Amino acid sequence: MPISPLAPAAFPDLPVIGGVTFAAVAAGVKYRDRSDVMLALLAPGTSVAGAFTRSATRSAPVLDCQAKLGGDTNTPAAILVNSGNSNAFTGGRGVESVQSVVQAVAACTGVPPARIFTASTGVIGEPLPHDKIIAKISELHEHQSSEGIADAAQAIMTTDTFPKGAAAEISVGGKSVKIAGIAKGSGMVAPDMATMLVYIFTDAVMDQAALQSLVSATNDTTFNCITVDSDTSTSDSLIVAATGASGVDVAGNAAFADALHAVMLDLAHQVVRDGEGATKFVTISVNGARDDRDARKVAFSIANSPLVKTAMAGEDANWGRVVMAVGKSGAVADRDKLSIRFGTMTVAENGWRAPDYSEDAASAYMKNDMLEIGVDLGIGSGTSTVWTCDLTHGYITINADYRS
Amino acid sequence: MPISPLAPAAFPDLPVIGGVTFAAVAAGVKYRDRSDVMLALLAPGTSVAGAFTRSATRSAPVLDCQAKLGGDTNTPAAILVNSGNSNAFTGGRGVESVQSVVQAVAACTGVPPARIFTASTGVIGEPLPHDKIIAKISELHEHQSSEGIADAAQAIMTTDTFPKGAAAEISVGGKSVKIAGIAKGSGMVAPDMATMLVYIFTDAVMDQAALQSLVSATNDTTFNCITVDSDTSTSDSLIVAATGASGVDVAGNAAFADALHAVMLDLAHQVVRDGEGATKFVTISVNGARDDRDARKVAFSIANSPLVKTAMAGEDANWGRVVMAVGKSGAVADRDKLSIRFGTMTVAENGWRAPDYSEDAASAYMKNDMLEIGVDLGIGSGTSTVWTCDLTHGYITINADYRS
Repeated sequence: MPISPLAPAAFPDLPVIGGVTFAAVAAGVKYRDRSDVMLALLAPGTSVAGAFTRSATRSAPVLDCQAKLGGDTNTPAAILVNSGNSNAFTGGRGVESVQSVVQAVAACTGVPPARIFTASTGVIGEPLPHDKIIAKISELHEHQSSEGIADAAQAIMTTDTFPKGAAAEISVGGKSVKIAGIAKGSGMVAPDMATMLVYIFTDAVMDQAALQSLVSATNDTTFNCITVDSDTSTSDSLIVAATGASGVDVAGNAAFADALHAVMLDLAHQVVRDGEGATKFVTISVNGARDDRDARKVAFSIANSPLVKTAMAGEDANWGRVVMAVGKSGAVADRDKLSIRFGTMTVAENGWRAPDYSEDAASAYMKNDMLEIGVDLGIGSGTSTVWTCDLTHGYITINADYRS
Repeated sequence: MPISPLAPAAFPDLPVIGGVTFAAVAAGVKYRDRSDVMLALLAPGTSVAGAFTRSATRSAPVLDCQAKLGGDTNTPAAILVNSGNSNAFTGGRGVESVQSVVQAVAACTGVPPARIFTASTGVIGEPLPHDKIIAKISELHEHQSSEGIADAAQAIMTTDTFPKGAAAEISVGGKSVKIAGIAKGSGMVAPDMATMLVYIFTDAVMDQAALQSLVSATNDTTFNCITVDSDTSTSDSLIVAATGASGVDVAGNAAFADALHAVMLDLAHQVVRDGEGATKFVTISVNGARDDRDARKVAFSIANSPLVKTAMAGEDANWGRVVMAVGKSGAVADRDKLSIRFGTMTVAENGWRAPDYSEDAASAYMKNDMLEIGVDLGIGSGTSTVWTCDLTHGYITINADYRS
């Protein structure tokens, strides 16, 4: 699969985060000739927070991680992730696989099982060949490195066309606090589904409850505001680990919250940029809604509309499809108060095409890689911004043409 | 555009319905060299019932029709439909266009404006060139024929690849009661959107309130149970007219209700069979849900999932994507009670792949044109059946490759 045309120029230089080390290996879970398992080890004192898919059919590793949030921070912790098999919809055997892997990591590293978080991504409904992973744990343990995060980003990819990383650094009272994160998402091979896994590490000090609260809130305006194809994985997992190695307590620190938000949004955008078949990155900004909830309904109705997404793919300034998506959203809307922008151009207002609408100018705008659709409902003060990509032949090729 | 591979072999012979006549003409609203306006005239005594899109941005003709339901049945009535322009999102000018056309029909035919129902389908946001339609009304009036329904079915098409018709006849106390209907839907040209228009005529006697109640209920299990791409038109309209010419009162008659249901379901299925790019007709049957509402959520979550639809297109027995769609539906589901069928084959049960699952048998089944996905949630007695088509390169080509 060629690299997405929307990919960043290069993987960023991620800073070393005190208190965490990484290793990646090729265990042959499914892929050949590439790494497919990563292990991160976290020092005692690390707070761990997370957010997970709300799917009613979520995978065994997701259920296990959810049960482990809020554990004892005095012990070390670990994160083990494999690609190639999602261990989802694998019944009781799936639970046994998670337990076997966790026990093996515990035996090798000394991390208590209650602080070992796992994730699996790839084919669904197939038993996880956990023996292949267990056979590599001592190697993963021996090769731990504080500089291994880029290798970890590679190991968690499925059919992502590029590895995803982001970082930030702030200064608090003259001391540096760093954040580095990796993600995978939105590439897929039949019969897989798009799954998003995100791991973010910081050397900040923050107690676990405060970190969880910050992560949950920030997730709502970043990863929960992107959509590629409206389908929700059974394995989506986000973990944020604060090792405390900087010695700087950032509870209530707005600059830290902003920096974490920036890293999470950057990774979320990279997932969209690697959306299956994507050729356009589309920002949808809604304001003037009755409330934020209505604004979000309208934004996602537009972002998930196959007709809007194919219009973007075709570089067609088809604002009529945006009108349609507003109309079907279920939000309160008044045709005669609605206005629609493409970039800075108002294309429709007062219930009709804008008086100075230019088809040529609108068509020229659509040739950009980065598009913005703005909708003002003209009713209240609710706002929402979401991000998506277009729907192209590439999506169909990836998801229909290749047989499992 | 080639005719859909799922099209019926031929347009059916529709019976003449006493009390209604038709004519169609080429008015040049947008298309060249084809009919694009139809006028149906209904005798005094005709009950008229309808159902319309719930879009918040619905078109001027839809709003006008909704206001006219429940009118005086002692007068004649008329239905005028144009293709090529939807008169949607056209502000005050759109309302004026509807009024102008209605007044012209009234002046020519003597039908009171309050009983003249119009519909428009085609490009959105462009002023309707209503003068072109008005110029043809006397011709439409002069050429009325009781046998003109097939011509009417042609005139309302946009980029449908075949005209859609269905009929039924029942005998009540030795007397015949007939139903004949036409529809358009799911073909589209950029920058149009899929719009469904349906007109059904019967010579049954039924008072307007009873007819409306029956039509609303039947609509819920027919047209409201189909989806092509999850997008909702601003113009969807269904009108059922009962002329009473048979002299047979069918209020409360179960056979009539069944016959009307059969005609509506047949037309609804034809719309799916003409879905943009469709190569598979997919029936999704859900049972064992907490209630019917949850069953419907699950059924539509599967039917609208791009990943499920592309799997069907790729003839990939990818039941993992069905698990995903169940999980994201918002309905109550228990992974370990869920079972999934493809046709008569159980592919997953008890939270995992079925013990006798055969990839070869499942893959062979997927080669059929007509597919059935069955889901048993194993929780309660809620059921729902919906119909959809697959998502193919053809959909992208129709909606992205052709510029407006």
